[in-house]
Amino acid sequence: MTKKDLTIGMLGFGTVGSGVATMIRDNEKELTQRLGVKVKIGKIVVRDMEKERGTYVDHGVLCSNVSDVIHDPDIDVVVEVMGGIEEAKYAIQESLKAGKPVITANKDLMAIHGHSLLRLAHENSCDLYYEASVAGGIPIIRTLEDGLASDRISGIMGIVNGTTNYILTKMKEEKWSYEEALTKAQELGFAESDPTSDVEGLDAARKMAILATLAFSMEVHLEDVSVEGMTAISTEDLELAEQFGYSVKMLGFAQRDEDGIDVSVEPVFLASSHPLSSVRNEYNAVYIYGDAVGETMFYGPGAGSMPTATSVVSDILAACRNLLLGVGGKRSHNPMNSRHLKGEDHQSAQFFHRLLVKDEIGVFSELTSIYSKHHASLGSIIQRPGEKEGEAEVILITHSLSRKNQGEIINELKASSSVKQIISNYRVEGGVK
Amino acid sequence: MTKKDLTIGMLGFGTVGSGVATMIRDNEKELTQRLGVKVKIGKIVVRDMEKERGTYVDHGVLCSNVSDVIHDPDIDVVVEVMGGIEEAKYAIQESLKAGKPVITANKDLMAIHGHSLLRLAHENSCDLYYEASVAGGIPIIRTLEDGLASDRISGIMGIVNGTTNYILTKMKEEKWSYEEALTKAQELGFAESDPTSDVEGLDAARKMAILATLAFSMEVHLEDVSVEGMTAISTEDLELAEQFGYSVKMLGFAQRDEDGIDVSVEPVFLASSHPLSSVRNEYNAVYIYGDAVGETMFYGPGAGSMPTATSVVSDILAACRNLLLGVGGKRSHNPMNSRHLKGEDHQSAQFFHRLLVKDEIGVFSELTSIYSKHHASLGSIIQRPGEKEGEAEVILITHSLSRKNQGEIINELKASSSVKQIISNYRVEGGVK
Repeated sequence: MTKKDLTIGMLGFGTVGSGVATMIRDNEKELTQRLGVKVKIGKIVVRDMEKERGTYVDHGVLCSNVSDVIHDPDIDVVVEVMGGIEEAKYAIQESLKAGKPVITANKDLMAIHGHSLLRLAHENSCDLYYEASVAGGIPIIRTLEDGLASDRISGIMGIVNGTTNYILTKMKEEKWSYEEALTKAQELGFAESDPTSDVEGLDAARKMAILATLAFSMEVHLEDVSVEGMTAISTEDLELAEQFGYSVKMLGFAQRDEDGIDVSVEPVFLASSHPLSSVRNEYNAVYIYGDAVGETMFYGPGAGSMPTATSVVSDILAACRNLLLGVGGKRSHNPMNSRHLKGEDHQSAQFFHRLLVKDEIGVFSELTSIYSKHHASLGSIIQRPGEKEGEAEVILITHSLSRKNQGEIINELKASSSVKQIISNYRVEGGVK
Repeated sequence: MTKKDLTIGMLGFGTVGSGVATMIRDNEKELTQRLGVKVKIGKIVVRDMEKERGTYVDHGVLCSNVSDVIHDPDIDVVVEVMGGIEEAKYAIQESLKAGKPVITANKDLMAIHGHSLLRLAHENSCDLYYEASVAGGIPIIRTLEDGLASDRISGIMGIVNGTTNYILTKMKEEKWSYEEALTKAQELGFAESDPTSDVEGLDAARKMAILATLAFSMEVHLEDVSVEGMTAISTEDLELAEQFGYSVKMLGFAQRDEDGIDVSVEPVFLASSHPLSSVRNEYNAVYIYGDAVGETMFYGPGAGSMPTATSVVSDILAACRNLLLGVGGKRSHNPMNSRHLKGEDHQSAQFFHRLLVKDEIGVFSELTSIYSKHHASLGSIIQRPGEKEGEAEVILITHSLSRKNQGEIINELKASSSVKQIISNYRVEGGVK
């Protein structure tokens, strides 16, 4: 390929798109020096041609039709920052078939159709890069694909949703209620007006599916991720966690051993000494355990216009470099390993249970016999008076047991006439593996 | 290039080399799947052919002469893990001239001769990778070259020497003396029997020169790094730091603004809320501030056989991939920016001073007038009784001032008859930029 300038067609011009345009304009000199040719934005597809835009672009580049970009022979690279599933998928497919490398920031799409899109890219000798789809400004996709490529990754723990981490931080540090923290996050612009996908863990689940796919070289699907939201977390739980040396975090897990894999998103009591515990506010961090490298962690902003644009433009640089060298899409994304999900009997963790029980003789021994019957040994047991006469609160932290056994314990506790309420129930992570 | 198996020639078979051999053996299947061809170790140059080795290798691969590897046409890739400067430099130069890509873990060499070696690699269309030379298992070189390539990096702060961080952690948490902590680090095998290069900051300075070169795309030399060691840090300083909300860390800095760059290694009072403050023991972490991405941090093991091998083998994968595609050494390493070192009048920071003064009328106002004369405003001033009658201790934390002014203040304090001793003097970092 001759060294002509490279032209980008961008689909969408929202938060991320305007960051990308700003960055390409402001860093023009550096980008040109890195590539040896100039990169310019040739077309931007927008929904509303008349809308006032905060970011200056020549109005001549705006157009309204996706096909204006994907079928334009002058467009060398396509950047998809429009979001959504079907239209974005179609646009990416057509771009790849037309021989254009694609950069996307679309986690929803990559979590569902990533496997087939990456195959299509490889078949068409085009790159499909998606660094911005997980943990905004943190180059975590690249780290798994290149930096740690030699290692066998056995576990990932991630704070991959900034909204929920912000809410938990403010509930803990400022004693705000869940609702106050959520409202503030919405005012600051990083929680959506409908926060369901964040607080119910779906957004994090999409990212964990993408990370697990890469880390394990396995076709992990969104449906493989078990998800529990954060709405049941109370300020009291946070205080209790702190007393026991934990912080409450919404964590994504992807774990692998000889029995298979286990991917989940759930609220967790995380040991305060764990590096992820000190991740505050809307920051993201991904903690990776590799058999050879041991513990590593990658920390940074999980969202925002400019951080996300950093990842998109780094992807643009990589795609352009490959295009100039004629080596696009060389990496096969066929999974090396077949996917085997662990059953609940093989998924093990520690658990924190807080129970409201009758304050009667024999209750304590009834409780402990329920635990031992299901092969749970206990690390801590604390009984304290309940708020009402005749009630006691019991807090138990188990040693590691299977999720199956823990489920059976919970069912038996619910059925017991001595147990008035299971106030809370958290997975516990002891920190350093 | 036809897809034949690729053969590695390794120079050296110490801690890192045996990790590399172990990893290539244990992960053979995965490496082959990633590359499409098999990678094997064809030759290993050792000093002592007869020595018993903990890592199994076929004795037929051992040889005693560097030229057996660099001039062997069957060797495709050279891995330099022998250490030292002159012999390693010669071996790398000859390998590159012979058209063989080189992977090195040699920070001493890269800090001094990296610029010329990278140019030589580019001229010979060969890759020269050196991920393992900085922060062992953390893929920080790649992050600066690719993941954050689009951004303008304005600052790096790094814990890039595991030995000193281990010593400081143990002095703080276990109340060990400096000598006790050093001895333990030597027993554990991560401090050398001669710890000078670690504790005097030279090891960290080499790494900061390498990081600054990449981050600023500038030819930064080892001599450009101003270095202060850790031997003056006392347990009392650590306690005092904690009282004021700081931890004492040996930090590497690389900072850039319109006045130029400033690279240093020094003991610092770092705000406890800063992400680097929670990096404990022998771990490394590199905190990067980019104009667009904002704050990021990369954390992991800084040394050790297998973590370092992870970086070396990831580099081997990248070099092999480029070799198979015929695109080795395509990246020019010519610096994009010319190097301009800031003078001391443009290097600014906050400082913590602890002084032993005469407890007399007028001393306090004499002190404060020295500070204001040199344009230093004070954030905190605390006076407390000294251990002896007639003495007082004064602790001052300045707002930001230039190093030049701070030097003048120190000189004037030394000259003052009211000041009996400057007990300690630290740079202060307020945390989040």
